[in-house]
Amino acid sequence: MSAAKVINKKKSFGGYVLTLQHDSTSLGCEMKFTMYYPPKSKDTPVLVYLSGLTCNHENFITKGCAIEYAAKHNVCLVCPDTSPRGDGVPDAPDTDDCKWDFGLGAGFYVDATQAPYNEHYKMYSYIVKELPAVVDATNKENNPTIRSLSKKGGAGIFGHSMGGHGALMIALKNPVMFASVSAFAPICNPSSGKCPWGTKCFGRYLGSVQAGTEYDATELAKKYDGPSIDVLVHQGEDDCFYKNQLETSSFESAAKKNSKINASVNVVAEYDHSYYFVSSFMRDHIEFHAKRLSS
Amino acid sequence: MSAAKVINKKKSFGGYVLTLQHDSTSLGCEMKFTMYYPPKSKDTPVLVYLSGLTCNHENFITKGCAIEYAAKHNVCLVCPDTSPRGDGVPDAPDTDDCKWDFGLGAGFYVDATQAPYNEHYKMYSYIVKELPAVVDATNKENNPTIRSLSKKGGAGIFGHSMGGHGALMIALKNPVMFASVSAFAPICNPSSGKCPWGTKCFGRYLGSVQAGTEYDATELAKKYDGPSIDVLVHQGEDDCFYKNQLETSSFESAAKKNSKINASVNVVAEYDHSYYFVSSFMRDHIEFHAKRLSS
Repeated sequence: MSAAKVINKKKSFGGYVLTLQHDSTSLGCEMKFTMYYPPKSKDTPVLVYLSGLTCNHENFITKGCAIEYAAKHNVCLVCPDTSPRGDGVPDAPDTDDCKWDFGLGAGFYVDATQAPYNEHYKMYSYIVKELPAVVDATNKENNPTIRSLSKKGGAGIFGHSMGGHGALMIALKNPVMFASVSAFAPICNPSSGKCPWGTKCFGRYLGSVQAGTEYDATELAKKYDGPSIDVLVHQGEDDCFYKNQLETSSFESAAKKNSKINASVNVVAEYDHSYYFVSSFMRDHIEFHAKRLSS
Repeated sequence: MSAAKVINKKKSFGGYVLTLQHDSTSLGCEMKFTMYYPPKSKDTPVLVYLSGLTCNHENFITKGCAIEYAAKHNVCLVCPDTSPRGDGVPDAPDTDDCKWDFGLGAGFYVDATQAPYNEHYKMYSYIVKELPAVVDATNKENNPTIRSLSKKGGAGIFGHSMGGHGALMIALKNPVMFASVSAFAPICNPSSGKCPWGTKCFGRYLGSVQAGTEYDATELAKKYDGPSIDVLVHQGEDDCFYKNQLETSSFESAAKKNSKINASVNVVAEYDHSYYFVSSFMRDHIEFHAKRLSS
């Protein structure tokens, strides 16, 4: 696998924010992602952050207040985009009243099976297979002190909203690769039929909402049989999506019934779905991962 | 003075980010600003942040990583816009090749004397007179634990780039109101003729670059005779504007020659002009202000 090209490098909190670009074979388009290299890096674990609907590779690094804690706790942040990009990538149909919750910026971290989306929308394979190899190749060239993602239990994953769904789902499907997982306001049960975002995206990308079961954190938590795993979740009580999209309690119940999963689901009063909420609990999440990933 | 209207309120780091709207008499248009109320507020000092070119009332609060420290150190952030706004406000002439460094988003914190800008571009009066009264009236209604800006030495001011110019200049002209001042990559000597931004803005708003002397931090530092004042400045060494716009050393020299000013100018290697730089030193700046403003 080739290294990504560094197209921008900025110093921040003693380390460096890199913007990277590469040709993605799984997505069939050019992609960008962001990384943060902490100062005094040594056997530094990678922590992948998956963003939510409408976001790209930049939102989190500019608004998440994560760099300070990544610098302090020796964590390399990797922040991919949320969908394939470019003129050749099909977006939501023009007839959609609401366009921001499907298509560009809304890949839902699944491998689409349905035309016209199955050519480019392979975000699951991108995040789980291609991106780790690209990150490893890039770090080998630019910063060999970063721990390889191929090292068992060497990396963590977290995310927000659609990216929270991605993080929980990917960690439960790949516990050897991702040894720590957390989420801010995750979409917890998108194949339930009670989550309009999941119904729309799974229906179009996969052919039916039921086909999304294999990408559903709650369903995966029911049958998870990997190494014991701790899961940290924060959910704002005044989040306008809490009661009609996220199905947080379904995931919490499923996790509580599985002795292999130790889930701490924290519903926090008055917080909403925005980065004002996400940033408020960033320290807790990065400390959570750093503790579990430190060698 | 009437209170501003709260049009948005979001919980963050235990306190609240408020977006406020009011009809400005000095600017002749509707204006927005942002405030942060820290948790457990008590005799909480106001710290005004002035943003740079192209920014509005939101950039700092979303990208500055300031909320965490404002919450921790019991500081109320007040973040105004950078120019008058609205369809009736003249912008840069259509013939300008570069439009982002003059007009909308680029009020330069002066009171324009030249047509067509002298009707709306009164940012100096807005920041020094109208905004403090609006903030006091708003806090009286919404959070009386915030200290009044009319209390002598009760408030601080800081800013970035054009806003760093604004902060230094306004503090040196109003030491009784603003007892603490700091800046990130400030425009330090805009009337020198060596700062193209200053030459353009002062020329158009004031009729000549020389007319900007009264709004120039370096010139003001030469003749400052108020109470002894500490000034904290951070400047990135790889900032692309450092050597051709900011004239940092002119301010530093003038301040060093004035026994009333104790300036700490810190040139930091590799940092640029962005919020990746600003946020990296946010803790230092908020701690600096909190120490000087705590009762």
